[in-house]
Amino acid sequence: MPGETQLIERYFLHLGAVRTDVPLGVGDDAAVLRPQPGHELVQTTDSLVPGAHFLAGDAPRSLGHRALAINLSDLAAMGAAPAWALLSLTLPEADEQWLGEFAAGFGLLARAQGVALVGGNLTRGPLNISVTLTGQVPADGALRRSGAAPGDELWVSGTPGDARAGLQLRHPELAFAADSAVVTAGVAANLQPAQRAALLARWEYPTPRVALGAALRGLASAVIDVSDGLHVDLQRLAAASGCAAVIQLADLPLSAELRAAAGANAWRMALAGGEDYELCLAAAPARGEALQAAAQVAGTRLTRIGRLSAGTGLAVQRDGAVMQFSHVGFDHFAR
Amino acid sequence: MPGETQLIERYFLHLGAVRTDVPLGVGDDAAVLRPQPGHELVQTTDSLVPGAHFLAGDAPRSLGHRALAINLSDLAAMGAAPAWALLSLTLPEADEQWLGEFAAGFGLLARAQGVALVGGNLTRGPLNISVTLTGQVPADGALRRSGAAPGDELWVSGTPGDARAGLQLRHPELAFAADSAVVTAGVAANLQPAQRAALLARWEYPTPRVALGAALRGLASAVIDVSDGLHVDLQRLAAASGCAAVIQLADLPLSAELRAAAGANAWRMALAGGEDYELCLAAAPARGEALQAAAQVAGTRLTRIGRLSAGTGLAVQRDGAVMQFSHVGFDHFAR
Repeated sequence: MPGETQLIERYFLHLGAVRTDVPLGVGDDAAVLRPQPGHELVQTTDSLVPGAHFLAGDAPRSLGHRALAINLSDLAAMGAAPAWALLSLTLPEADEQWLGEFAAGFGLLARAQGVALVGGNLTRGPLNISVTLTGQVPADGALRRSGAAPGDELWVSGTPGDARAGLQLRHPELAFAADSAVVTAGVAANLQPAQRAALLARWEYPTPRVALGAALRGLASAVIDVSDGLHVDLQRLAAASGCAAVIQLADLPLSAELRAAAGANAWRMALAGGEDYELCLAAAPARGEALQAAAQVAGTRLTRIGRLSAGTGLAVQRDGAVMQFSHVGFDHFAR
Repeated sequence: MPGETQLIERYFLHLGAVRTDVPLGVGDDAAVLRPQPGHELVQTTDSLVPGAHFLAGDAPRSLGHRALAINLSDLAAMGAAPAWALLSLTLPEADEQWLGEFAAGFGLLARAQGVALVGGNLTRGPLNISVTLTGQVPADGALRRSGAAPGDELWVSGTPGDARAGLQLRHPELAFAADSAVVTAGVAANLQPAQRAALLARWEYPTPRVALGAALRGLASAVIDVSDGLHVDLQRLAAASGCAAVIQLADLPLSAELRAAAGANAWRMALAGGEDYELCLAAAPARGEALQAAAQVAGTRLTRIGRLSAGTGLAVQRDGAVMQFSHVGFDHFAR
C-alpha cells in the first residue's frame, strides 16, 4: 500500500492552478507565497464532516468540489480574488479510487478559479475534509456584512432553495425536521429528468459567485454568502449593519425546477434551505442599474427581494402582511 | 446547550494575540489581513487526529498547545515570523471543560508567539484538530530544505529523543514497534520526579524554535524541522539538497533526563523518536561561530552532529564504523 508521501504526490502535487506568485509550493516545511503589493489578504477555512455536511455514499467528486466551493463562496462574499489553498484530509483508509475522484472534483474547480494547492496533509482517521483558502483584495476594498444602512435594497444571486431540493432528491431516506421544507415523494416523482439533474447539480456542484463578488466592490454596501439559509444569513447581514430587513415573498427568485419539485413549499426551501452558496447583498437604491449590469457581466442572475430600514429583525411579507417564520438555520451544536 | 456561535464567542473570539495588521478578524465571511510590504507569506497546515497523533485521555490543554506548536515549528524551519492562525475543530460533543482547557493551551502559546486567531470553524463529529498558520519572511529570505552543499556541517537544536521518552512515560501501555526505542518499566521507575516531568513536558508542550529559525536566515544553507524523527528528517534535508549525510553517534546531544530514562537506548530515541519539533540544519563550516552566537541569543542549544558530502543517503557512524539503522519514521498510510 502506498504511503502518505506517495499518495500526496500521486493525487495532489499538481492538482491546482499554476501561479507565478508561488515561489515554493508543496514539498518543504511550508509554502512560500508572494502577495500582490497594495492588496490585503482575505482568509477563510471551512470543513466537511460526515453527518454535519454530507452523507455516507455521497460522490467523492462532489465532496472535492464542495470542500473548495464553500471556501470560494466565503471569499466571493468579501469581493476577494482567490489564490492559494491548503487541504487537510483525514481518511479511514487509502482508497485510491476515492482519492482520484475527490482530487478530480477539487482540481477542476481549483483550476477554473485560478487557485493553487500549496500545501496540506493526509492522515488516517475518521473522514474529515478541511480547506483553508487565501485570496486578495485591493487595500480597504473588502466587502463586509456590516456596511449597509436603512433604505438600502436587498438582493440575492441565483435561485436559492435549489440546493436543498437537490439534497432531498439525493437522500429521500432522510427524515427532515418537521419545520423544514419537504419534498414529498409524489411531487419529486413528477420531475422531468433534466429538472431533477439541475437540482441535484445545485447541491452536489454549487457554483461559488466569485466573479460577481469581485464586481460588487464599490457597489454593494454589505455582502454575505448564503450557506445556512437565506433567512438566517440575511438576519446576520441586517444585524451586523444595525438594520431591520423586510423581504417580499413574491419577489423570491424561485427556479422552475424548484417549483416543479416542491410546489407550494418552494418558498420555504428558498428561505430555509441552506447550502446555496449564493450571495445576499445590500446596496443603495441608486446602485440598482449598475448592480444588474455587473451581474450580467458575471453571468449570474441577481434579484431584488427587499429593503433595510431602521430597527432590528427580519420580516417576510406576503400580500403586505408579515408571515410567521421560525426556522433557525444550521447550528452544529444547538439541540 | 450552547450553539456553535456561542461556543466560538466564549472560547475563541479573543484567544490569540492582538495584531494591528488584522483589519477584520473572526465574525464575517472571512478575515482581512494586511501583509508587510517587501515580505513573502509562509503558509502551512497540520492536523492532530486521535490514534495518529495523540491518544484518548491526553490533556486537552496539551492538544491545544501542540496543534499550534506543530505549525509554528514548520514556520520556524522556514525562518518566518508567525502572524495569523485559523482553527478547524471537529468535536463529538460540546464539552465546555474540554474546550476551556484546549483554548487555554492554544491561547497561551499564540499570545507568546504573537499569533492572532483570525478564523475557524467548530463542527460536530469525530475529534479532529486542524490549524493553518501564515507567517512572513523578507522577500527571497525563506529557508528551504534544498540549499545545502557538500562540506556543509549539520546541526540540531535542543535534545532530540526527550519527546519520545515523554510519550512512552505517559503511555506505558502502548506496544511500541520492535525496531523502535523502548523505555523499560524498570528503567523509567528509577527516574527522579523532576526528570520525569521534564520528559513529559517535552512531549506534551514542545517549544517550537521560532526565534532560532528567524536567526538562521543568512546563516543556514538548509533547514528542516524534526517532526518524524531526526534520522528520517535529516535524510529528507540531504535528499532535497542532493547530498549524502554522515552523523556521529557520539555527538548526538542526549539530555541527562533521556539518559536516565532510556539508558543504552537513548541514542535510538534521539534518532527515531519523532515529535521533537527541533530544527535540523546545514551550514558552511565558516558559519559555526555565528550559529552558536545566534542560538545563544535565541536561548536554544545547538549542537554540531555531522557533515554533508557528495553522494546520497545517510550514515550514522560510531567509533568510525557505519551502523545499521532501519527505522523509517512515521507514515500514516504505509503498512
